[in-house]
Amino acid sequence: SHYIVCGFGRMGKQICNEFNSESIQFVIIDKAPDKIEAARNANYIAVEGDATLDETLQNVKVQDALCIVASLSSDAENLYTILSAKTLNPKIRAIARANTEEAVKKLQRAGADTVVSPHLTGARRLAAAALRPQVMDFVDGILAGTEGSFYIEEFLLDPSICPFVGKSLSEARLRSQSGALVLAIRRADGTLIGGPSAEEILQAGDILFCMGTATQLRQINRILVPNQGTSLRPPHEEK
Amino acid sequence: SHYIVCGFGRMGKQICNEFNSESIQFVIIDKAPDKIEAARNANYIAVEGDATLDETLQNVKVQDALCIVASLSSDAENLYTILSAKTLNPKIRAIARANTEEAVKKLQRAGADTVVSPHLTGARRLAAAALRPQVMDFVDGILAGTEGSFYIEEFLLDPSICPFVGKSLSEARLRSQSGALVLAIRRADGTLIGGPSAEEILQAGDILFCMGTATQLRQINRILVPNQGTSLRPPHEEK
Ligand SMILES: [Ca+2]
Ligand SMILES: [Ca+2]
Repeated sequence: SHYIVCGFGRMGKQICNEFNSESIQFVIIDKAPDKIEAARNANYIAVEGDATLDETLQNVKVQDALCIVASLSSDAENLYTILSAKTLNPKIRAIARANTEEAVKKLQRAGADTVVSPHLTGARRLAAAALRPQVMDFVDGILAGTEGSFYIEEFLLDPSICPFVGKSLSEARLRSQSGALVLAIRRADGTLIGGPSAEEILQAGDILFCMGTATQLRQINRILVPNQGTSLRPPHEEK
Repeated sequence: SHYIVCGFGRMGKQICNEFNSESIQFVIIDKAPDKIEAARNANYIAVEGDATLDETLQNVKVQDALCIVASLSSDAENLYTILSAKTLNPKIRAIARANTEEAVKKLQRAGADTVVSPHLTGARRLAAAALRPQVMDFVDGILAGTEGSFYIEEFLLDPSICPFVGKSLSEARLRSQSGALVLAIRRADGTLIGGPSAEEILQAGDILFCMGTATQLRQINRILVPNQGTSLRPPHEEK
C-alpha cells in the first residue's frame, strides 16, 4: 500500500517532503538521472524511467499502490501516466497536476480523482490572503498540523465496525471523551451538515470531519473503530 | 478603502473574479493594453501603467487603499511594487506572489504581509489531496463558501465595542444564539486555543474563528459588535 510520485522537480520534491513527514511509504519515478540522484541524496527510493510507460509503472508495483501523484511539467505526460496507472490498477487514487487551465477537464476525463492547478490554487490563496488573512493562516496551520499540533482528520463510519451508527453524537460522547471537535458530517449522499448538534444521528457511510490534536484524534479513532480492524489511515503520531 | 490588483494575467484575473464575487471594490494595474482591454471587457476598473512606479500607484490612490496584491510574473517587479506601495502607505496590506522559491524571503523582507508561492501551495495541495482527500474538499468548500454556504470567518474582539470581553464563551451564548461553531481562539500573543470549551474567557485582542452560514456569521457579528460601529468586514450576503 505505497504511494507513487511521478516527477521529482520543484513540486515533486515538496510533495515527497510532505509524504516523508507523515511517514508515508512512497517511490519516485523520474526520467532525469540528476533528479534521481537528488532524490536518493534525500534518502528517498527513486526509479529512473518514463512514468507514461506500463513497464516503468509495473516496476514500481502500480498494481499494489494506493495512490499515484502525476507532477510532471508536461500535461500530456501527466494525462498519459494517469490513464496508464488507472488501466493497470483501477482502484488506485490518482492525483494530477494541471499546468494549464485547459488540462484540468482533460485530466479529470482521463480518470484523475483530483486535479490541482497551481495557478488556480495560487490565485485563490492570494485572494483569500487579501480577504481573510487570519482565517488562511489558521486553515494552513491546521492542514499542515503546525498549529500546536491541531489538525483536521476524516473518519468514515463503517456500520460493521463502528458501534455508534444509528446513535446520536451525544450518545457517542466524542467531544467529552476525546476533546476533539466534530466540525461537520458529510452524508453518503454528499449533504454536508456543518456544526452538527448533539442530537444528530450518525449514519452508515457518514464521514466525520474532526479537529483536534493527534492524541484527541487517535482517541476519536479508538471510539469509532474500537477493534482497530480498520482501513483508516490512523492520525499522525504526536511530534 | 479599495483594493489594488497588479497584473491581469492568468492569476490576476482569477483573483479579480474572487474579489468581484465578494463585492470588493478594486482597481487593476497592468502594462499591457490587451490585458487592460480584457479587464474592461469583464467590467472591471483598469489603469494602464507600470505598477512599480509611484506615479501609477498614486493614480490608483494607493494612499487610501486597504490592500495591494502584486501578481506580476516578475519577482523583481513584485518586490519593487510592494516596497513602493508600503512607502506611500505604510498601513496597506501587501500580498505578493513569489514565482521562485528564492523570492519568498526577499518579498517578506520588502514588507509583504503575505507571500504566496503557487508552486509551494500547489505541491501542498497535491500532497493533501493524496493524504486527506475528503478534508481538502471540505476545507476548499468552506474557504470558497460553496459548501451549502458554510464558511469560516474571523472576528477581532475590541473591548471598546464587544460586551463579552472578560466573560466566558457560554456567557456570550454565541453557539446557542447564532448556531455557528467557534472553531478556535487566537490570543493576542499568538497562542491558538482549538475547540475552546464553554468556560474559556474571551480576552481583548482575541480573534475568534467561527464556522457557519452567512446568516449565522452575521448573527455572531451582531452579538460581538452590537452597535455596528465596526471596522470588521461583514460576512458575505446569503446567496
Ligand atoms: Ca504534516
Ligand atoms: Ca466566495
